Order: sequence, then structure tokens, then C-alpha cells
Amino acid sequence: MAIRSASARWEGTLTEGAGTMRTGQGGLQGNYSFKSRFADGQGSNPEELIGAAHAGCFSMAMSKGLADAGFTPVSIDTTANVHLEAVNGQQTVTRIDLNTTVNAPGIDNDTFQKIAEGTKQGCPISRLLAPGTEITLTATLAS
Amino acid sequence: MAIRSASARWEGTLTEGAGTMRTGQGGLQGNYSFKSRFADGQGSNPEELIGAAHAGCFSMAMSKGLADAGFTPVSIDTTANVHLEAVNGQQTVTRIDLNTTVNAPGIDNDTFQKIAEGTKQGCPISRLLAPGTEITLTATLAS
Repeated sequence: MAIRSASARWEGTLTEGAGTMRTGQGGLQGNYSFKSRFADGQGSNPEELIGAAHAGCFSMAMSKGLADAGFTPVSIDTTANVHLEAVNGQQTVTRIDLNTTVNAPGIDNDTFQKIAEGTKQGCPISRLLAPGTEITLTATLAS
Repeated sequence: MAIRSASARWEGTLTEGAGTMRTGQGGLQGNYSFKSRFADGQGSNPEELIGAAHAGCFSMAMSKGLADAGFTPVSIDTTANVHLEAVNGQQTVTRIDLNTTVNAPGIDNDTFQKIAEGTKQGCPISRLLAPGTEITLTATLAS
């Protein structure tokens, strides 16, 4: 089993305060604030870290799915768009849209779409997030 | 509504390849590999980004909970430990342990524990993750 650590420090009130999020192993660090989360202020926010985790997991798992089907992936580029909006007065992640573009020589589109859909269902972060939000996928073969 | 973007690129096979995860707004970037995710290799992994998102959301939401109860938070430090292990042969996030230490002058421990528990239940990333994994919380008042 792996246990992965990260931390965050917030100082002050919700709207006037500010915080820092950091990962234990990767050494990533991002500042965040009310404005960078709920408006268009500079800085990071928890939702884009969820998106990075999901895109990262999907791309990695897709490499396994392709190899298991006999194809050698050259590159897998995935974007995650995480929707945050008020639902019954509570800020809620209502949807995550994954868009992936894959360069894997020799694969036909039907086989590719099946592997992509299976990866969307099966990758560890998809299985973590799917019970709590909607996930969509658009998968494209690089020409 | 806010839509937050992040992306990841993976090149090569699962065990020999490597990838990069990056956030759109915060400009964070982390390299990852099979070893940095499932063993003890250098680099980042999706699970620690989930942890950073959760710790970040909890700390920020805790500042609101304290202020709503009439207390002015000085600092809220939260760590998230994300457990990844095989369940029925599938790598699965089985638990996230939150540990928070709060400096908020004048608050009694009972009131503090109630606010912390409410934040664990109610913060947007907790509500996203709770349907898909177990979440525990240990909350401590800084003396």
C-alpha cells in the first residue's frame, strides 16, 4: 500500500485570508484565495488539482489499456475541465469533462473508443470520483 | 460557475513511460511515473494531488465555519494522507485521513470539534470524495 501526503495552510478569514497547498512527494506548491477559487483571481484552487489528478490517472491508465490490446502508445494528452457551481446554495463539483488525444499507431477507432471508455470507468481516480460527480469523456485519435 | 482546467501527458508504456501533470490556472507542474505512483520513485502522483485538493478545501472551509461561529482563525494547518491499495486486484483509494491543527483564540474544544466535523461533511471536495472513499478526521486546537 502507498500512503501519499499533502498539506494546506490557511491564514485568516474566508474572503480576506489566503492559503498554500503543497504535496509531500512531488514538492508542488500553489497559493490560493477566495478569488482564485470562486472568481478569477490569480493562483490555484482545489478543483484544478482534482483535474490534474484525474487527467494524470487517465493518461497513465490509458497507456496500460492500449498496451494490453497490443498497441504501443506514443503519447496520451488529456485535459480535465472541472465544473464548480452552487447547488442548493452549496458550491459543488457537478461535472468533470475529460478530453483525450492519443497517438497510438495502427489502432482502429472502434477499438480505441472501447479502450478509452474502459479507462474512464476503471482508472483509480475515476472510480474515486464517479460516485460523487458526473464524468464525461471525449476521445480522439491523433491523425 | 467556475470551470477549472488541468492536463496531463503520458509518453510510452505503463511501467517504462513517464508523464507530466499540470494545472491551468496555478501553473503547477509535476512529473510522475510508475515508480513515483506505485513504489517509492521520485516524483509526484495523482493521489497526492487529491490530498492537496482535499487539505486545501478543508482548511479554507474551516475558516468560514470558525468565522460563522464568531471566532477569528489565525491559522489552519491540514494534512491529508491518501491510501492507495489493491482491492480485488484494482488499485483503489481506500481512505483519506485528514489531520488539522487550528489556531483560533477563544474557542472551546467542543465547539471546535463540532465545526471541524461539519467542515469534514460539508466542504465541496469532501462532498465530492465521500461517496467514493472513507474520510477520517483528527482535529486539534493549537495551544
